[in-house]
Amino acid sequence: MSQTNRVVVYKGTGEVAVESIDYPKLEVPAEVADHFGIARKAPHAAILKLVTTNICGSDQHMVRGRTTAPIGQSLGHEITGEVVEAGEDVLFVKEGDICSVPFNIACGRCRMCNEGKTGICLNVNPARAGAAYGYVDMGGWIGGQAEYVMVPYADFNLLPFPDRDQALEKILDLTMLSDIFPTGYHGAYTAGVTTGSTVYVAGAGPVGLAAALAAQTLGAAAVLVGDMNPDRLKQAESFGCVGIDLTTDGELADKIAEVLGEPEVDAAVDAVGFEARGHGKDADEAPATVLNDAMSIARAGAGIGIPGLYVTGDPGAADESAQEGTLGMRLGLGWAKSHFFMTGQCPVKKYNRQLMNLILADKAPIAKAVNATTISLDEAPQGYADFDKGAAQKFVIDPHGMVA
Amino acid sequence: MSQTNRVVVYKGTGEVAVESIDYPKLEVPAEVADHFGIARKAPHAAILKLVTTNICGSDQHMVRGRTTAPIGQSLGHEITGEVVEAGEDVLFVKEGDICSVPFNIACGRCRMCNEGKTGICLNVNPARAGAAYGYVDMGGWIGGQAEYVMVPYADFNLLPFPDRDQALEKILDLTMLSDIFPTGYHGAYTAGVTTGSTVYVAGAGPVGLAAALAAQTLGAAAVLVGDMNPDRLKQAESFGCVGIDLTTDGELADKIAEVLGEPEVDAAVDAVGFEARGHGKDADEAPATVLNDAMSIARAGAGIGIPGLYVTGDPGAADESAQEGTLGMRLGLGWAKSHFFMTGQCPVKKYNRQLMNLILADKAPIAKAVNATTISLDEAPQGYADFDKGAAQKFVIDPHGMVA
Amino acid sequence: MSQTNRVVVYKGTGEVAVESIDYPKLEVPAEVADHFGIARKAPHAAILKLVTTNICGSDQHMVRGRTTAPIGQSLGHEITGEVVEAGEDVLFVKEGDICSVPFNIACGRCRMCNEGKTGICLNVNPARAGAAYGYVDMGGWIGGQAEYVMVPYADFNLLPFPDRDQALEKILDLTMLSDIFPTGYHGAYTAGVTTGSTVYVAGAGPVGLAAALAAQTLGAAAVLVGDMNPDRLKQAESFGCVGIDLTTDGELADKIAEVLGEPEVDAAVDAVGFEARGHGKDADEAPATVLNDAMSIARAGAGIGIPGLYVTGDPGAADESAQEGTLGMRLGLGWAKSHFFMTGQCPVKKYNRQLMNLILADKAPIAKAVNATTISLDEAPQGYADFDKGAAQKFVIDPHGMVA
Amino acid sequence: MSQTNRVVVYKGTGEVAVESIDYPKLEVPAEVADHFGIARKAPHAAILKLVTTNICGSDQHMVRGRTTAPIGQSLGHEITGEVVEAGEDVLFVKEGDICSVPFNIACGRCRMCNEGKTGICLNVNPARAGAAYGYVDMGGWIGGQAEYVMVPYADFNLLPFPDRDQALEKILDLTMLSDIFPTGYHGAYTAGVTTGSTVYVAGAGPVGLAAALAAQTLGAAAVLVGDMNPDRLKQAESFGCVGIDLTTDGELADKIAEVLGEPEVDAAVDAVGFEARGHGKDADEAPATVLNDAMSIARAGAGIGIPGLYVTGDPGAADESAQEGTLGMRLGLGWAKSHFFMTGQCPVKKYNRQLMNLILADKAPIAKAVNATTISLDEAPQGYADFDKGAAQKFVIDPHGMVA
Repeated sequence: MSQTNRVVVYKGTGEVAVESIDYPKLEVPAEVADHFGIARKAPHAAILKLVTTNICGSDQHMVRGRTTAPIGQSLGHEITGEVVEAGEDVLFVKEGDICSVPFNIACGRCRMCNEGKTGICLNVNPARAGAAYGYVDMGGWIGGQAEYVMVPYADFNLLPFPDRDQALEKILDLTMLSDIFPTGYHGAYTAGVTTGSTVYVAGAGPVGLAAALAAQTLGAAAVLVGDMNPDRLKQAESFGCVGIDLTTDGELADKIAEVLGEPEVDAAVDAVGFEARGHGKDADEAPATVLNDAMSIARAGAGIGIPGLYVTGDPGAADESAQEGTLGMRLGLGWAKSHFFMTGQCPVKKYNRQLMNLILADKAPIAKAVNATTISLDEAPQGYADFDKGAAQKFVIDPHGMVA
Repeated sequence: MSQTNRVVVYKGTGEVAVESIDYPKLEVPAEVADHFGIARKAPHAAILKLVTTNICGSDQHMVRGRTTAPIGQSLGHEITGEVVEAGEDVLFVKEGDICSVPFNIACGRCRMCNEGKTGICLNVNPARAGAAYGYVDMGGWIGGQAEYVMVPYADFNLLPFPDRDQALEKILDLTMLSDIFPTGYHGAYTAGVTTGSTVYVAGAGPVGLAAALAAQTLGAAAVLVGDMNPDRLKQAESFGCVGIDLTTDGELADKIAEVLGEPEVDAAVDAVGFEARGHGKDADEAPATVLNDAMSIARAGAGIGIPGLYVTGDPGAADESAQEGTLGMRLGLGWAKSHFFMTGQCPVKKYNRQLMNLILADKAPIAKAVNATTISLDEAPQGYADFDKGAAQKFVIDPHGMVA
Repeated sequence: MSQTNRVVVYKGTGEVAVESIDYPKLEVPAEVADHFGIARKAPHAAILKLVTTNICGSDQHMVRGRTTAPIGQSLGHEITGEVVEAGEDVLFVKEGDICSVPFNIACGRCRMCNEGKTGICLNVNPARAGAAYGYVDMGGWIGGQAEYVMVPYADFNLLPFPDRDQALEKILDLTMLSDIFPTGYHGAYTAGVTTGSTVYVAGAGPVGLAAALAAQTLGAAAVLVGDMNPDRLKQAESFGCVGIDLTTDGELADKIAEVLGEPEVDAAVDAVGFEARGHGKDADEAPATVLNDAMSIARAGAGIGIPGLYVTGDPGAADESAQEGTLGMRLGLGWAKSHFFMTGQCPVKKYNRQLMNLILADKAPIAKAVNATTISLDEAPQGYADFDKGAAQKFVIDPHGMVA
Repeated sequence: MSQTNRVVVYKGTGEVAVESIDYPKLEVPAEVADHFGIARKAPHAAILKLVTTNICGSDQHMVRGRTTAPIGQSLGHEITGEVVEAGEDVLFVKEGDICSVPFNIACGRCRMCNEGKTGICLNVNPARAGAAYGYVDMGGWIGGQAEYVMVPYADFNLLPFPDRDQALEKILDLTMLSDIFPTGYHGAYTAGVTTGSTVYVAGAGPVGLAAALAAQTLGAAAVLVGDMNPDRLKQAESFGCVGIDLTTDGELADKIAEVLGEPEVDAAVDAVGFEARGHGKDADEAPATVLNDAMSIARAGAGIGIPGLYVTGDPGAADESAQEGTLGMRLGLGWAKSHFFMTGQCPVKKYNRQLMNLILADKAPIAKAVNATTISLDEAPQGYADFDKGAAQKFVIDPHGMVA
């Protein structure tokens, strides 16, 4: 049977399009096979028909020209799909299973995967530890804002949902398991959020909102979310967080004190990353702002979780330092307060099963928290544009019209 | 009985002297009592006759004029002494006990002390969390490079040695329990050093050497120590570490690869702090060098322990950023490698009992590792000068001639 | 001023009475002072006027004659009170503060307290590690089902509420911080309950209900609570748990499978202890039943938290083994499933501040969960009787009529 | 090429023999394939030529008739070998690699493997969680006291040594990575042994000796090892442990106090298991003795690691309770001391890489500690007999004469 495939592709700064590409094969990218001296043929892989696939804030970094992504880069790493073909060594996941796909591609066989650190797998990317679908410098794996996608090491990477009907019913929540819900959780968890904590989350985009919901799940007593976008702040407030408006005058510490009666929190999460801006209405980019803010308002002994992305190369940065990922961090302050800093890609597999169980038990309304909004594959370019303008929505592409 | 006391005092850049001061009273400093609304009278305090008291690298920051320490600041926070007087609420430590005194002063009653974070006690310093003896901005507690010193909350702060004779016999090892051995251990431990780890320690001064010995104690397979001082490198090699000469050409990663067969280590410790210099013979100060080095050679997923001191104000720094403790950290690189960063004063009580047990069992030759060298109180100024010049020695002041 | 005091006293099997005793002094019990060689005079102590003081299931063990408690033993260890007098070395808690008192008495100065293990403090009980108010073999400290009570090491032991009015308003929740809420939390936490866990709690008495609520707080996806008392099961169901009726025929595993679709849970909590009974309507005592049940239905790798009390001497036990606390545990099964078992008194201080924050943020309706019911001090004997008969209530004594 | 294979086989109580069997195929056992609905054909598997394969104390349970092992059961789960054939989906381990094989067979793809709990893999044994080579009720996998053996999920299960010559040189140490060194380490580690701990290990057989060496590696200040066999005690003393002779009169606590000056230790390890005997020269079997001993001498708050095997069915046990794995545990005592108990098969993969690094760095002389003694495959029956008589040796079978 001859089959086709369509995928979202980066077409230059500010531009994406949906293009036809080959139907996926059970093969790893040539650059991966060559570098690691393994066969291209992949009996461990599966092909998935996409059920949902989300647009992510980190896709925006590429589309805004803030990375070295080449024109033609396929996009999409927030994947949920149905297994339609499986290699000979895929034993435990079956055709017909609807599965969440962690955005980090991992082999399940190296030291890092053995330690649960699937975000820095050693066998999937010639350039560095860690890989992802549809992302520059992440191993050449084809993106999943598509009709079909190939998932390697499928028994290891796929999280099958226990019941197909139940899965389709809760699909707008479950689709967040591929990235932002675990990523937000990772930020809150590694920051040390626990029963009774007060928490500050910088950024009310989808990852920030996911971190805020995760903080509640972890037992936080109060969750404050800072942003400059009033719609996003409203979104945070819709599920019990306190919005902190960063466009108004005044120190962040004072704004926190107004809410909590003290100017400090037990834990802080940076859900913004390297495109951070200074405060105030017309603030310029200031990549260390969020981290320095976090140190100023995190209690002595606090943790700072950093799910927001920082990069080693940012061609669009304002100065040379920032272009190579060097930031002016006020580490003297952090050190005086005995802070700890947790960085890096979320190892999705560490959390996705737990969070799935919570969703299936109706205890984690993540779709509502991030305002999930379904669009078709052809609407993806519009979704990118709206999201870039700051829409307080999380766009979920539904390539086959399977979402009710 | 009228008693006297003598203490080492900072007299201006590059200068210290031994001066007479009042014999200590069972009283907390006025600034502490006033700020926290407590009585000056301290039934919880004890007075110790010093057995040993060491010169610390962080004392040098003050003496080199790199802090805001006023002239007249009393010095000394590495204290081992015999209890000669105890307040009415000192119940479990007795007169005659020889005790190690953690450099961090802690109340044992606040939330942070409850959590074991005695380095950031909330009740001992009006200026911030955490206090120490004889240090600028650390609460006004009188220094312990002296004949006698007052220790508040004595039941909580003091670690009595189980046997007096044994203690005096091993005093050059035990004297390291007040600061550098726990501090080095904290650096290695928080960096995640464990059975089979490869470790890089930046700096072969006493804290670096203590971190290296601690790494061995924690089960490291290989410990590499980098410095520019050949005598200090020799000292590191004397107990089984590999010295890495930072004055020669070449990348640090390559030097590590020569030893380990790969350019990365499992964990890194920054035992240098804010007065770091760039590499090479005539390198200038470059405060982020050590941290950026650490990110470049720590494996993906590694921890970076930072016992080296970073400050919020450094009047002697080369530029404005560094003067307020802001460093150009290559966080993009650390993030890409999923590093974590552990900062702050070591909470000595968390480790000192364990390390004491190891010393008493003859399993931690820390005195030899750091080349402990006994001097009299009057020789303290000479000790400061020699240490500042880079002597590969740890100076232990013996104010009462009690060290054999 | 001559003052009086009244306290609940054990008068023989099945009998308690309210009797007059001396007003408390700032003194430790003679047996403690003598054994540890410390002064009786206690400048570290405070006297509290009781605001609330609860009847505990472990009090019932004494009253049912299942311990070696002598007639005349004063009772009560779940204490919340207002500081009315404080010793000279009580610095941070002030007269007028309303405070929760952890049931474990701890010095704050020994190795165990330093490690946060306040349930096994080494300085408060000549008989063993750990002490409590009003309990046999627990150090001779006078019970707190009284008008006034003395609390030693008050700065360490007391948890002051931040605001008096708010405290009085939420007092029926806050009163649970002295024992059962932290104890239930400890059971769930040490069993490894976390985001998405399925949990089985054995016992729907107050500790079981507290464990169930704590499991929800820790993020459990489903909490099942087993008991033979229909009212208590209803109580569990009132806040979203699933009741498992142990009086009906059938294996526990099957009952669990009916709810969860699989016969195992991720974590189990034994909130019953040594007076456990076999299943079915007329079951006899069978002290290992709950533990063996737990092993049968806990998943491989699961933890079993055991806040339920097991004792070293039980004069009322059915056989000689049980009389010395020896149980027929099916450890072969537990071992085959790689279970871990966490025992012992809850170290209340480890959790009470966190749980207080949750209560003050209206996020932990513990009073409602355990059906808190206020009675006067004179009604205490009736409360004991009702509770012993299985009332699905938690009795809160209000000695001074301060509860609204 | 027609190839043969020979393997050690259980022939009835007290008897083993070396017999010819088929050369292994790249296939999983039929019972596994059928139960889990997977193909028998195993592209994930590899065939290894044995380099070394050790006799284990748990093999003795079968040979002594203390399990339900049928006559004809193939034996051997401590496997080190050279890859001679690899399935199509074995990508990262190569022919010629010399590898250590964890005794636990694990799929690397299930929830438990994802969590690092390879001792209770869900996909390898129809009877329960967890599997092993050559063991009753452990999935039907053929034993490895043989010339050749099949290893499934080879990329996941195999630990390749970095250098062939170095591996062969240190092979008597490296051969202990398949089971006893990690198992002993697991016992010490889960008991909480850390820097400065005092440790009691019950049993000076190979696992006990491995636990003792591991305790030293973890930083123990003192390691005491109890046994009734004088040769094994001497073996323990040969590397710095203190032997405790259990045949002499007196309480264990007193014997410990003689060494340490106090009757308790910080951590205890049960390296004996269900065939434990009471103390004294002619003691009978008393399966709970070791655990009850451990509770009597472990400090309040201590951990008890239980690598010693406890079973769910023991046909040779003295009474009915023990026959189903029920023991008379003095849990009341353990509870009063807040002990925790860690049971189950060691998940070898969790530790073997770390311990390999230590061996390769010449920092863990495990072969010497357990007195490794090389024998040929034909000498295996004699090795079983000698080991059963209590030889203070660890027998290492060298089927191909590859050990120098």
